[in-house]
Amino acid sequence: MMKATVYVTIKENVLDPQGTAVQGALHSMGFAEVGKVRIGKYLEVELDTNDRAEAEARLKVMCEKLLANTVVEDYRFELEG
Amino acid sequence: MMKATVYVTIKENVLDPQGTAVQGALHSMGFAEVGKVRIGKYLEVELDTNDRAEAEARLKVMCEKLLANTVVEDYRFELEG
Repeated sequence: MMKATVYVTIKENVLDPQGTAVQGALHSMGFAEVGKVRIGKYLEVELDTNDRAEAEARLKVMCEKLLANTVVEDYRFELEG
Repeated sequence: MMKATVYVTIKENVLDPQGTAVQGALHSMGFAEVGKVRIGKYLEVELDTNDRAEAEARLKVMCEKLLANTVVEDYRFELEG
């Protein structure tokens, strides 16, 4: 059993309206020190395998095909266990 | 200027229907090795301050008041810079 942590973030040059909304909300709550806010996804995935290389290769396919929209998002992952 | 990374995750004993949906989608795509999937949020926040202790204290308030719903979500953050 391995555990993967996947981070999906919006590409640097793509607008993040959700982040902008959160930034505005924090400003209006008095947190004037808040600058740019970017919001992404964080996934924890359990994988029933012990083959690290195969897990990495298949996780890459999962990210490309389902977990991330690679047109506007980047992803990275960590494997443990 | 400091940079905070905030992770907001659903508490262990709270159902995550989005994670269950992603798990089902991955299974139907042939990724039978996928076990439990939990989905959370990942935020990058720029803070215009150099006072680490104050930044931590204020970030905690931001999380409690806006970024996380502490009834059903946990949060943690890292500060750098």
